[in-house]
Amino acid sequence: MTASPTACMILIGNEILSGRTQDKNLGYLANELGKMGIRMMEARVIADIEPVIIDTVNECRAKFTYVFTTGGIGPTHDDITSESIAKAFGVPVIRHPDAQRRLLLHYKPEDINEARMKMADVPEGAQLIDNPVSAAPGFYIENVFVMAGVPRIMQAMVDFIKPLLKGGQPMRSVTLEVERPEGDLAAFITQVQEAFSGIEIGVYPLIKQGMLATNIVLRGQDETILHDSVNAVRRKLGEHDIIVLDAA
Amino acid sequence: MTASPTACMILIGNEILSGRTQDKNLGYLANELGKMGIRMMEARVIADIEPVIIDTVNECRAKFTYVFTTGGIGPTHDDITSESIAKAFGVPVIRHPDAQRRLLLHYKPEDINEARMKMADVPEGAQLIDNPVSAAPGFYIENVFVMAGVPRIMQAMVDFIKPLLKGGQPMRSVTLEVERPEGDLAAFITQVQEAFSGIEIGVYPLIKQGMLATNIVLRGQDETILHDSVNAVRRKLGEHDIIVLDAA
Repeated sequence: MTASPTACMILIGNEILSGRTQDKNLGYLANELGKMGIRMMEARVIADIEPVIIDTVNECRAKFTYVFTTGGIGPTHDDITSESIAKAFGVPVIRHPDAQRRLLLHYKPEDINEARMKMADVPEGAQLIDNPVSAAPGFYIENVFVMAGVPRIMQAMVDFIKPLLKGGQPMRSVTLEVERPEGDLAAFITQVQEAFSGIEIGVYPLIKQGMLATNIVLRGQDETILHDSVNAVRRKLGEHDIIVLDAA
Repeated sequence: MTASPTACMILIGNEILSGRTQDKNLGYLANELGKMGIRMMEARVIADIEPVIIDTVNECRAKFTYVFTTGGIGPTHDDITSESIAKAFGVPVIRHPDAQRRLLLHYKPEDINEARMKMADVPEGAQLIDNPVSAAPGFYIENVFVMAGVPRIMQAMVDFIKPLLKGGQPMRSVTLEVERPEGDLAAFITQVQEAFSGIEIGVYPLIKQGMLATNIVLRGQDETILHDSVNAVRRKLGEHDIIVLDAA
């Protein structure tokens, strides 16, 4: 298996930690990166606290190929991401001329105020990430990509970022649903896992019409080996037990 | 503001990192702990990789009052949480007699196999967490609580754990919805934040019937000060602009 580029996501926001908001960005980004062969290795949800943001960004940018943050780049006092990232990189915050221009074009003159213009502040040396939804840009500096938390804006920013990333060999996956509890299948699946070391097999219980059932997810970069491993499972379990949920 | 006990959640599972499964446990636990005055400070989503689990658990149990993990305690080869936690604490895994008894009672004799009995293995010195849904227990050792990932089981385990935790002064919160974009409100809310240092004010944009609107969340331990801060916002914005979404 070729080593894939890795990613870490940092979700910045008290609203996710308090249970008020359900994050939808992690799954979206993980999927998009997965298709490019970039593997999401870790995600962290952290509070709007400057030293926590600084430490987390510095730890993660050293550890993973790419770091993606969401949240905290709006106009209000609790939006401290840009300043914290600048401190993580040891550079000042500057008002980016192109970001400023975009904001001045976007807002009516009477709506322009200092809070909104603060959204043009980025760490010195950062490049902008376009925001086609509401103008205020994200930015990237070295391997750290800073995006908005609102899912619609975040997704547009991911579209902008993707061509900037160096991908790897994508993981392909096949999901099998079996109408038997995972404890019945465990010993056999361990054997398949041992026979196919290049394949990662995940086994997940679910409840289907009141009965315990199991999803078996097989993932690997080599399509031939992946299909051999899937066939090993299917031969053993009998076709009638299995529904192929998806193959990507 | 009295210092509150703190919590960190570690979600163990490739299925969340790959985008396949949407986590529902963080919000649930954060809410339940919040009512007890225990503050969720951080959450981490990590892969089923032993050294990653060990390092993350050891870092977090030193940093926070309580650590809660979900996932990886089932019968299959990818369920490596118990063994990893034992290694984090430097103790062996033992087959817990009471856990074994529960599993033997729960399963029909023909369904008992080594994979299922592995669910009775816990770090030496751990205490069990009841699982009224499907018998296989969670466990806790020192300040680390290890739970199942399936939400229905996880929630039952949280009920079991709550009496074991020492709470603090709960945070109360009031959410106001304002039909104006946050950039209009930012300067004024900064003033309110400065006037009420014991209150945390979060400002979150949303799109409502195609228009930009804002949720203002005010949180604090002292009910009188909280209501004074809410009134300061209401007086300034005018009652007609505001919907009180919830007050807890």
